[in-house]
Amino acid sequence: MRILTGIQPSGTPHIGNYFGAMRQIINIQDKGETFIFLADYHSLTTAPEPEQLRKNVLELTLNYLSCGVDPEKAILFRQSDVPQVCELTWILNNVTPVGLLERAHSYKDKIAKGFAPNNGLFSYPVLMASDILIYQSNLVPVGKDQKQHLEITRDIAIKFNNQYGEVFTIPEELIPEEVAIVPGTDGQKMSKSYNNTIPIFGKEKEIKKAIMNVVTDCKALEEPKDPDNCNVVALYKLVATPEELEEMKARYRAGGYGYGHAKLALFDKLWAYFEPMRQRRAELEQNLDYVWSVLAKGAEKAGAEAEKTMDKVRRAVGLR
Amino acid sequence: MRILTGIQPSGTPHIGNYFGAMRQIINIQDKGETFIFLADYHSLTTAPEPEQLRKNVLELTLNYLSCGVDPEKAILFRQSDVPQVCELTWILNNVTPVGLLERAHSYKDKIAKGFAPNNGLFSYPVLMASDILIYQSNLVPVGKDQKQHLEITRDIAIKFNNQYGEVFTIPEELIPEEVAIVPGTDGQKMSKSYNNTIPIFGKEKEIKKAIMNVVTDCKALEEPKDPDNCNVVALYKLVATPEELEEMKARYRAGGYGYGHAKLALFDKLWAYFEPMRQRRAELEQNLDYVWSVLAKGAEKAGAEAEKTMDKVRRAVGLR
Repeated sequence: MRILTGIQPSGTPHIGNYFGAMRQIINIQDKGETFIFLADYHSLTTAPEPEQLRKNVLELTLNYLSCGVDPEKAILFRQSDVPQVCELTWILNNVTPVGLLERAHSYKDKIAKGFAPNNGLFSYPVLMASDILIYQSNLVPVGKDQKQHLEITRDIAIKFNNQYGEVFTIPEELIPEEVAIVPGTDGQKMSKSYNNTIPIFGKEKEIKKAIMNVVTDCKALEEPKDPDNCNVVALYKLVATPEELEEMKARYRAGGYGYGHAKLALFDKLWAYFEPMRQRRAELEQNLDYVWSVLAKGAEKAGAEAEKTMDKVRRAVGLR
Repeated sequence: MRILTGIQPSGTPHIGNYFGAMRQIINIQDKGETFIFLADYHSLTTAPEPEQLRKNVLELTLNYLSCGVDPEKAILFRQSDVPQVCELTWILNNVTPVGLLERAHSYKDKIAKGFAPNNGLFSYPVLMASDILIYQSNLVPVGKDQKQHLEITRDIAIKFNNQYGEVFTIPEELIPEEVAIVPGTDGQKMSKSYNNTIPIFGKEKEIKKAIMNVVTDCKALEEPKDPDNCNVVALYKLVATPEELEEMKARYRAGGYGYGHAKLALFDKLWAYFEPMRQRRAELEQNLDYVWSVLAKGAEKAGAEAEKTMDKVRRAVGLR
């Protein structure tokens, strides 16, 4: 069972990223032969600053390796290290109806958000199809916003196979594990755009400050409190054992336990939870050669798989 | 001065092809450093039969080498032997406004002709831009139907250079030499679609038969004839010396010279004109290893140039 997933940088990772997308991706590596690619070709559709894109690739690699991607289990590689994916994109373009792309929501959404309507955004579903098909992926985890793209991928693959013979595995959707809802410090969903995040790899002081700012109601120390409607408890739940969680909830209900106490307890747990990842990241930062070598090895493995598919594709369409 | 031109198969070549596009392309090799590519990625936009595409590439190579492309002068290569062109296409997509492609005549024309509106046809001007820019071409010979594509190429190159720094040479149009008008056997322009062609590499009998079928008026043997309104003379002009042409014209005007005589004279000249090319083709057919080695060497040279450009491009956009 081969599983493919692409990752894109979202700036400094916060615990909302971790308990949302990152942990989900990391857990996949135990479910099958997993390919994880850093989607740098894809990034170009929104014209990032070149220096930023270069930095992002390294940061993303450091973040995922620190948080648990195991290069012995998963093939972690940079999309642009396997340029065959662009060759396949060109070939698949020719079996992709323009109307299919015109109906893609993501393109319309991006334009509505003010991005320039360039042909990269427009053709992006073909690149995504190419990413999936070139590795003969069986399963692809997709969020809601990517469901339609996987449908397009399947359409393209079926059309190609009908026209040229059975070359591509038709991918299926990997139903994602349920993802924890992570409240930000203001109680909204944690998100960089709300400026309510708690960073994973921040300094102790910075993280403590963020946690002390988590919004609660105004109940006094001695009053009993409602643990089921408290952002501090919701965050604590992510990092505490069930017993620890129940203990905190009991204290809430009993009264005489202030939000300040709960926040300090949260900080201690959170700090301890991410301690191994912070350590791992510090080690990796001191050993960038190793980090690059992980990507190089990933590229080699992924490239060999891509080349196998491309050999079939080129023969099928008559280029060889 | 670097000149780039792409060629596509048009079936069995006829003398209309030769005195039109082929000779023009062959003459270019004396004007600068010339890259001639067999546009097989491009062919895919109209979904040829794979077997036909494979055959076309070899035929096209044999035809051009026989008719005068000199691998010591020009770099002759297969488009798909330099897959970097697809990587550049993806990158250029991101600086290509969708509106620019929507305004391309060739796409609308192809759809009007009944081709399926696939994303290969739609995005084709970006592939063409990539072909031109990846080799840092100075000059590109373009027919009327390609003028707009060269404009699009320039737009893309200028936009890229503005955004990322001076990476691409901005190509100019090579004003094509005037091309002889070649009448077909029925007097219309010679064209496969009118079924009025005289093949270059046909058998003696076949060519003689085609020439004997050239349409003339019904003047009898002894009557004087008008050499300036005769398809036989128009064809003779392509292969005869000026003196020979004047001699035939004089005979026309004098009378006592029949169309049958003129046709036999035309056949003799035409047969002799293409004799060295027929011989060369027969030799090449016996030596396909050499033919493939020409393409392999071409691919090596073109690939090295492409890689130079791609190195700059990848650094400029932040992929490296």
